[in-house]
Amino acid sequence: MNSDPDPQAAALKALDNYARSMVPVAAIGITVAAYDGERLHLHAPLAPNLNDKGSVFGGSMNSLMTFASWGLVMVRLRLAGLEADVYVADSTAAYRKPLYADLHAEAWIAPGEDWDAFLASFSARGRARIALQSVIRLPEGGVAAEFSGRYAAIAKG
Amino acid sequence: MNSDPDPQAAALKALDNYARSMVPVAAIGITVAAYDGERLHLHAPLAPNLNDKGSVFGGSMNSLMTFASWGLVMVRLRLAGLEADVYVADSTAAYRKPLYADLHAEAWIAPGEDWDAFLASFSARGRARIALQSVIRLPEGGVAAEFSGRYAAIAKG
Repeated sequence: MNSDPDPQAAALKALDNYARSMVPVAAIGITVAAYDGERLHLHAPLAPNLNDKGSVFGGSMNSLMTFASWGLVMVRLRLAGLEADVYVADSTAAYRKPLYADLHAEAWIAPGEDWDAFLASFSARGRARIALQSVIRLPEGGVAAEFSGRYAAIAKG
Repeated sequence: MNSDPDPQAAALKALDNYARSMVPVAAIGITVAAYDGERLHLHAPLAPNLNDKGSVFGGSMNSLMTFASWGLVMVRLRLAGLEADVYVADSTAAYRKPLYADLHAEAWIAPGEDWDAFLASFSARGRARIALQSVIRLPEGGVAAEFSGRYAAIAKG
């Protein structure tokens, strides 16, 4: 038991702990599914996210996508050995189709952005911004909702 | 007890029932506060909406503002004697300052939009779109978050 834990597994476990301890995120039922080195995958069940029409409430989709992109920033910071408070600064969302099933979201870095530049900027200045994208897919293929968001990382303390 | 109920009070009561029966909206604790003929006012408590930093989760602010604008469309349709399924089509949100207190949101029609044109279009075609705005205010003055969203109303059935 003296071997170092897998850093990626530890980062996902830490994110899953955030998902369980943040009350509004736990209420939605968000769980961390996987990280493939580029994309973070999260899930949430249908039942706690139903609207008046039997489909998923847009606000729940927004919360999941907001948290997915936030979570990817947290994971990348942790894998770089850095700690920060991360805030969503602004976002846009498009709701393409009603979703009548469990929620499956992915988040990744926006085109033109660069993790190394973000991490270097944060290390040098104690704050940095980065743009992410998220999507929620339909079980039959295609997209239920799309999201772009900008996030600010600020050194703790 | 044969007098008609106040239509505005009945419309707000119906919206409050939606807020209590939609699970993800009830989880946030959204309640309907007031409607002054132009602006709809909604509240939500801090505790169920806390993030990892002791402030309000951005996703909760987005859900409240999404629901506030949706609710205003529902109220205006009901006051016109119309029934529809109303969906958020797209939205943008800016998170200006962290909020460390209960949430107070307002929603109103976006500049350049017109309720009469929206209601006439819906009555004629069974579907119509309208743009709304929402804001969450800070207790010390100023704005925690701002929201613009477009909504689609579609005749039931």
